[in-house]
Amino acid sequence: MRTQVVIIGGGPSGLLLGQLLHRKGIDTVVLERKTREYVLGRIRAGVLEVGFVNLMREAGVAERMDRESYIHDGTVISYGDMQFGVNFQKLTGNHVVVYGQTEVTRDLYDARAASGAKIVFNTEHVEIHGADSTAPYVTYQLDGTEHRIDCDYVAGCDGFHGISRQTIPLTVRREYEKVYPFGWLGILSETPPVNDELIYAGSDRGFALCSMRNANLSRYYIQCSLSDHAEDWTDAAFWQELKRRIPAEAAERLVTGPSIEKSIAPLRSFVCEPMRWGRLFLCGDAAHIVPPTGAKGLNTAASDIHYLYHALVQVYETGETEGIDRYSEKALARVWKTQRFSWWMTTLLHRFPHQSEFDLKIQHAEVEFLRDSRDAQTVLAQNYVGLPY
Amino acid sequence: MRTQVVIIGGGPSGLLLGQLLHRKGIDTVVLERKTREYVLGRIRAGVLEVGFVNLMREAGVAERMDRESYIHDGTVISYGDMQFGVNFQKLTGNHVVVYGQTEVTRDLYDARAASGAKIVFNTEHVEIHGADSTAPYVTYQLDGTEHRIDCDYVAGCDGFHGISRQTIPLTVRREYEKVYPFGWLGILSETPPVNDELIYAGSDRGFALCSMRNANLSRYYIQCSLSDHAEDWTDAAFWQELKRRIPAEAAERLVTGPSIEKSIAPLRSFVCEPMRWGRLFLCGDAAHIVPPTGAKGLNTAASDIHYLYHALVQVYETGETEGIDRYSEKALARVWKTQRFSWWMTTLLHRFPHQSEFDLKIQHAEVEFLRDSRDAQTVLAQNYVGLPY
Repeated sequence: MRTQVVIIGGGPSGLLLGQLLHRKGIDTVVLERKTREYVLGRIRAGVLEVGFVNLMREAGVAERMDRESYIHDGTVISYGDMQFGVNFQKLTGNHVVVYGQTEVTRDLYDARAASGAKIVFNTEHVEIHGADSTAPYVTYQLDGTEHRIDCDYVAGCDGFHGISRQTIPLTVRREYEKVYPFGWLGILSETPPVNDELIYAGSDRGFALCSMRNANLSRYYIQCSLSDHAEDWTDAAFWQELKRRIPAEAAERLVTGPSIEKSIAPLRSFVCEPMRWGRLFLCGDAAHIVPPTGAKGLNTAASDIHYLYHALVQVYETGETEGIDRYSEKALARVWKTQRFSWWMTTLLHRFPHQSEFDLKIQHAEVEFLRDSRDAQTVLAQNYVGLPY
Repeated sequence: MRTQVVIIGGGPSGLLLGQLLHRKGIDTVVLERKTREYVLGRIRAGVLEVGFVNLMREAGVAERMDRESYIHDGTVISYGDMQFGVNFQKLTGNHVVVYGQTEVTRDLYDARAASGAKIVFNTEHVEIHGADSTAPYVTYQLDGTEHRIDCDYVAGCDGFHGISRQTIPLTVRREYEKVYPFGWLGILSETPPVNDELIYAGSDRGFALCSMRNANLSRYYIQCSLSDHAEDWTDAAFWQELKRRIPAEAAERLVTGPSIEKSIAPLRSFVCEPMRWGRLFLCGDAAHIVPPTGAKGLNTAASDIHYLYHALVQVYETGETEGIDRYSEKALARVWKTQRFSWWMTTLLHRFPHQSEFDLKIQHAEVEFLRDSRDAQTVLAQNYVGLPY
C-alpha cells in the first residue's frame, strides 16, 4: 500500500491533521492501536483555544461544536480568602470555548468516515522505517498479518507512550522533564456545573478545579497524593474534600451526585527536541506533555498540527520545504512558552511537599499581585486564550 | 533625657525618618552604634524609586540629589544571546533615579547637623524597655556611662543584625526566610560605566550586573559561590569573568581599572511579622531583607518610613491612632509584593546548583516571553519603578 502521509495515532491530533490534509486533496492513512470506542472513552480536556476551534472550522468539522459549545469570557481564581475573576474578553478581546475532547474526537471520526479516508484500528507492532531517508515506510500487524505502507511523510500523533518519539535515535533526541510530586483526582458527574466559569482554587489543603463539559456534565478535580488510589476515594469523600478547597459560596451551591468516571492522573512537564527527524514529525503528546493546570494539552497539540498542516500543504503545492525544515523550530518556540505558562500556573496554585513558610508567603503574594494588577492578569489571559500561532 | 521618638540606627532609614519628623516639629534622638565615617563607608544601593526621591524632597534634603542624580528611563536585560531593553518611561510613565546610598546618607547627616537634632554615635548595649507599655524608654552606654531616654515611640531602624527586632518576643514574632545558594561579588571602580542604563545579565556562567554611581564611578557584580573569598579574586580575574557574562558588545567597550572596593554579599529573603509591637516600629532591614536583584532594599525601607512618618504625624497632630494601629499591616502588604518581585527577578537570572535542564529551559522561555510580551515588561517595569505606597 502507498499513501502520501501516514498518521500514527487516531486521537484528536491525528484525526484533525488527517481531515485538514484531506480537504487539500492530500492522501493519508491513520493507524490507531486501540478501537474507536476505546479512544472515545478517554476523558480528557474540555477547554479549547479559539485557535483550535478555527482549525476545526478549517477542517470543516466545527458545525456541532459551534452549536453545542460554550463560550467562556473569563475564569475565577480563588486562594484562601481571596477570590477574583480574570476577564479574558476585556483583557484580550478573546475567549475560550468549552467542548469536550470526546466530542471533538467523535466529530472527527464522523468526518473521516464520511470522507472515506482510510483509518486502521487495532494495529499492533507499528514501526517507522527510513524516516531519515527519502523513502520512509511504516509496518504494522493487524490480526497477525504484516502490512506495509510506503509514504512521503510520517506524522507521529501517538501520544506520550507511542512509538514515534522512540523512533528518533537517542543521539539526536533530547528530553526535558519535570515530574510534580502530586496528582489530580478527577471525577465526571451528571450534575449542573457549580459555576458559569471555571474556578481554579488554591487552598491550604491543596488545589481544586471546578470545570465542566456541558449544562449537566461537571468535571471536578482535587490535587491528591501520588500514592492515592481512585478506588479508595468514595464519592462522598471527594465532594467533602472539594468543598473544603473552593470558595464557601461555591461549596454551598455545589450540586453533588454519583461520579460516572473517577481517576487519578500524575502531573508532568515534558518536551522532546527536535520535533522533526527527517520525514517524521512529532505532534502533541508524542513530543510534549504539560500539567493540566491552564488546559494547554490539546491546545498545544493543535498548534503543532497547524504548523505541520501548513508545511505539508506548502511542500505538496509548491515543492518548497521551508515549512517542513522549520517545523521543529516553530513548534518548539510555542511549546516552550506554553510549558512556561502551565508550569507557572501549576506552581501558583498547588501545595508542594517541601514548600517553606516563606515559599507559601511568596505564593500568596503572587496571587495577591495577580488580583491587584491588570497587567499581570493580561499576561495570564493572553496565555490562557492562547498565544498566536 | 526625654524625647518624642527614639530612632535606633543612624543609617538612611533612621535619618530620613528623623528629618521628616523634625520638619513637623516632632522631636527625635538618633542612636547609632558606629561612627558617621563608618556608616558613610558602607557601599550600598544606588537605584532609587521616585517614591524615595519624593520623601527626600518632603524632608527638604533633595537639593544635591536633584542636581547630581541620573534619571534612568529603562534597563537592559540580557540572557545568553538575547538582549533587550525594558523602557520604564514608555510602559509606566515613570523612571528610577541613580544616586548612591552613601550620598543619600551624607545629605541626611548634613541636614541633621543643620537642624540641631540630637544624634549619638558609638552607642553600646542599646536596649528598648516597655515597648508594649505606654511609657517606653531606651537605655544605652556611651564611653562606659549608662544613659536613659524616655519617649513616646521607638523606631527600629537598626538593620538586620540590630536589637530592635530581637526586642519583640518570640511568642509574638514570626520570621520567614530564604537563603540563596550563592553570593554577589561586587566591585567599585573609578571608571566610566559601560552603559547608560543598568545591564542585568543572565548567562550560563551565572548572573552579572553592570551598575553605576556616577559618570566616573562604576559598580559591577557577578554571581559567585558562597565559599569564595573576595581577596582571592584579583581585579583581572573579576573583569575577565564579568566580560564572559555580559553581551559581547558591552564586554568590548568595558573600561576596566583598579577596584576601590571589593566584597562578597550573600543573598537572602527575610521578613519579620509583625512590624509593630506596642510602641516599637520596625523599619527597613530590621524587618526585612531582599536579594539585591531589582534594587529594592533601600526603596522598601523608604516605604516603611513613609507609612510610619504619616502614622506618627497623625497621632501627634490629631491623636488618631489609625495609622499606628495599621502600620504593620500596610507596610507588610507592600513588603511582600516587593519580596515577590525580588525573588522572581533573582530566580529569573541566576544559576542555581540544582537546576535541571528542564528548569533552565523554563528560565530561558520566561526571559523570551518577557522579551516578546509588552504586558510582561509592564509588570516588571511597574515593580521596578516602585509600586504605589
